[in-house]
Amino acid sequence: MEVVMDVEALNAFLARDFPQIDGQFRVERADADGITARLLVNEGHLRPGGTVSGPSMFALADVSVYCAVLSRIGPVALTVTTNASIDFLRKPAAGKDLLAVCRLLKLGRSLAVADALIYSEGSDDPVARCSMTYSIPPERRVFSALK
Amino acid sequence: MEVVMDVEALNAFLARDFPQIDGQFRVERADADGITARLLVNEGHLRPGGTVSGPSMFALADVSVYCAVLSRIGPVALTVTTNASIDFLRKPAAGKDLLAVCRLLKLGRSLAVADALIYSEGSDDPVARCSMTYSIPPERRVFSALK
Amino acid sequence: MEVVMDVEALNAFLARDFPQIDGQFRVERADADGITARLLVNEGHLRPGGTVSGPSMFALADVSVYCAVLSRIGPVALTVTTNASIDFLRKPAAGKDLLAVCRLLKLGRSLAVADALIYSEGSDDPVARCSMTYSIPPERRVFSALK
Amino acid sequence: MEVVMDVEALNAFLARDFPQIDGQFRVERADADGITARLLVNEGHLRPGGTVSGPSMFALADVSVYCAVLSRIGPVALTVTTNASIDFLRKPAAGKDLLAVCRLLKLGRSLAVADALIYSEGSDDPVARCSMTYSIPPERRVFSALK
Repeated sequence: MEVVMDVEALNAFLARDFPQIDGQFRVERADADGITARLLVNEGHLRPGGTVSGPSMFALADVSVYCAVLSRIGPVALTVTTNASIDFLRKPAAGKDLLAVCRLLKLGRSLAVADALIYSEGSDDPVARCSMTYSIPPERRVFSALK
Repeated sequence: MEVVMDVEALNAFLARDFPQIDGQFRVERADADGITARLLVNEGHLRPGGTVSGPSMFALADVSVYCAVLSRIGPVALTVTTNASIDFLRKPAAGKDLLAVCRLLKLGRSLAVADALIYSEGSDDPVARCSMTYSIPPERRVFSALK
Repeated sequence: MEVVMDVEALNAFLARDFPQIDGQFRVERADADGITARLLVNEGHLRPGGTVSGPSMFALADVSVYCAVLSRIGPVALTVTTNASIDFLRKPAAGKDLLAVCRLLKLGRSLAVADALIYSEGSDDPVARCSMTYSIPPERRVFSALK
Repeated sequence: MEVVMDVEALNAFLARDFPQIDGQFRVERADADGITARLLVNEGHLRPGGTVSGPSMFALADVSVYCAVLSRIGPVALTVTTNASIDFLRKPAAGKDLLAVCRLLKLGRSLAVADALIYSEGSDDPVARCSMTYSIPPERRVFSALK
């Protein structure tokens, strides 16, 4: 399926519609195979011992799957997560950003499913694995037609 | 199984060992049936439309399961989440705190499993359902003996 | 929400539409709180050591959630599982049937979510915990009108 | 990590220790990247409409992850599934075997995590996605030393 929002469009969408998380996440790749998204790790993401918190990894997976879906259907802001499953595999490296490599497994009329592996930058061993389901509202076509 | 950390002990533990999240979460019940924990919702937890973000609900579930485990085994800080599964069921009510009602389903030597239902305060319809697995380190007994 | 299929109607539906599993499962309760379903354990469900296999527990959870949904919306045969998460907590007791106690957490227009605890008959400690999402086809109303 | 059980050894292990499922599953690949396992679909796996049942897909995922773990640690029969998460993405093609392509994401001392994509033979679109956690008993080394 065609990519209808590229890296610039996705980052602009995040900055405009999600000011709360602005500056924390950055999409770095959006192509036919999926998305790569970065968590720019700061003090607020850390837990005792200098490791990135579980909720921060969850947020990165969520942003990456969301952008993977939007990259194919356009800026449908009402698209929502309905289910997520996450396995925490290893301790993230201290002082490193996290990268989520996400692939879209299904894009149906009403549901999209994707999974992501999360890595500490520079490492080949994933720190987490996540799969998510997104619900796409029926208003999708109208909305897309308006943009 | 006996409750070895009560509400006061759990809140004191969170405040001391997790300064990053201090003031956001509060344990309100810890008994033989499980835990109730509150997310004191503020601006930083919200998404467009005034709804609480998915990662904030994930964080509340995580804190509630963590405290449910600690309430039985004592302050074992190295206990870590290995798996989480979450279903987002309804939009949280605007301007309401969230409450997680958590029950411990298994407490083994190395793994603990719990689930939680999350509600907007004042409502009986859950906004999310979550189950989590925690890994308990072998050092548990030594640590518990020291406290 | 009203229960529109009772225990007899659900068992008759399973026998007619799922001849492959006939005689393995039996609905024993269907009320406003949810469903109880039984796996009549036989040799084919066992693994080495006399324990019930994971796929058999998964099948029981699936039947219980399916019947919990149908008990509210009527015999919509096209309703399908889209997601399942299961935790195996303890070894089932040898020579005992399994009982799934299922509660419906959400029944939306297109998605239903339920969870279930599975017990060896006569025990209060769950052997497994499961949550599932079902997708309900748009044909629902037409189909219901025909019955 | 080195592969210590090859395709022949894994199939011989399944036939000897799991007579209940003999003839239903066959390992077809076991290398550094993971496992491919086949479900030889028969009448007993089908649901109304000729589609493979959810529990049959779950069983295939379970066998593939189990064999992926054993291929690295040897025939540790007490290794058990503790958690599984599965998404059903598409209807399997009628009259086709299913293939699970499994990759091992973590092999720790006590926990192993893998995921699998399941395909109808001859198709590139996955019908299901699954991730699983296995618990490896402490007896592992003794057992391995005895074989």
